[in-house]
Amino acid sequence: MAYPGSLEKLVSHWSRFPGIGEKTARRLVFYLMSAPREWVTEFADCMRELREKVHPCPECGNITDQEVCFVCSDLGRDQKTLCVMETAEDCAAMEQAGIYFGLYHVLGGRLSPLDDEEIPEKSLEALKSRIDALGVQEVVLATNPRIEGDLTAYAIQEALAPFTELKITRLAYGLPVGGSIGFADRVTLHVALESRKEMRPFD
Amino acid sequence: MAYPGSLEKLVSHWSRFPGIGEKTARRLVFYLMSAPREWVTEFADCMRELREKVHPCPECGNITDQEVCFVCSDLGRDQKTLCVMETAEDCAAMEQAGIYFGLYHVLGGRLSPLDDEEIPEKSLEALKSRIDALGVQEVVLATNPRIEGDLTAYAIQEALAPFTELKITRLAYGLPVGGSIGFADRVTLHVALESRKEMRPFD
Repeated sequence: MAYPGSLEKLVSHWSRFPGIGEKTARRLVFYLMSAPREWVTEFADCMRELREKVHPCPECGNITDQEVCFVCSDLGRDQKTLCVMETAEDCAAMEQAGIYFGLYHVLGGRLSPLDDEEIPEKSLEALKSRIDALGVQEVVLATNPRIEGDLTAYAIQEALAPFTELKITRLAYGLPVGGSIGFADRVTLHVALESRKEMRPFD
Repeated sequence: MAYPGSLEKLVSHWSRFPGIGEKTARRLVFYLMSAPREWVTEFADCMRELREKVHPCPECGNITDQEVCFVCSDLGRDQKTLCVMETAEDCAAMEQAGIYFGLYHVLGGRLSPLDDEEIPEKSLEALKSRIDALGVQEVVLATNPRIEGDLTAYAIQEALAPFTELKITRLAYGLPVGGSIGFADRVTLHVALESRKEMRPFD
């Protein structure tokens, strides 16, 4: 192969992104080469600019280009409820759903002994001091629905044990809405059955 | 949502790439925001640079950052065989397979009445004059194995009808190697059956 060196370099850069293999990276690069020059320049600049400007919110760890993020600076939000998430990306999903009106706390990590990952000590400490400072009444654990998320949730539960007045909850497991039972995996079915809810007779 | 405006802009930029939906775009952008700054800068620069430098080869339409591409400038390759492809990306796949030693001719389009696409007149004309100039003996049609590719191949066959001495071939249809018959679609099975080859007795 004697394709331009910068092509191979860009393919390898692109393959670093999660979920992008070499074949996909190559397709993206070829798209790029046929896209309008001005757009490519704008895209590249936009990317650099975002990376320069955006940083974690010093309060909750969510991403922001302001001093504190738009959630923390919104006094209309319930200051007594904290939703603990693994990443800022998870926050974005929750925020986009438009169903949660409290504050967030981004861990920026998870507990995963197999991958040698730990919850960053700093964000656990920050969580505790925020609970104190804000007088938080409920912490909603919204770690991911998998083993690592479970471990992380238990670790946080343990770390928060001294707060005896604090309510600690976790997002429910069950069948995803719009899914089909035929495609549900065994563990999800099991948990959905275990957590089944009684249907009330109509009034 | 009050995420940084540049975030939403970048997500929408990214969604323009083929096969990248909004969810994937968002994931990529979040990855970007946690990636090292220097790498992001390098990635963005690499992208811009490639787009600036790379252009279609004036001979065959393949991409290059030289005057003519590495295939056309390689006199060791068979100058009497032209492989006609829809895009430069297809060329890259063929070249990576390392199984073809003739020259290429990139159409830069396909015939697709439903999408209102036509083979660029210019590349058809260029194809004819190259056949003349090089004294080409065989044209291998390597358009994609789908309706549009079929139509494109027939259109080229028709356009090349005046070259009575020219051999025109097309890549074979059949089962993909390593695939499984259980997963093969009806049309592929049909064509594989129609084109079945006799197994010779061992000598």
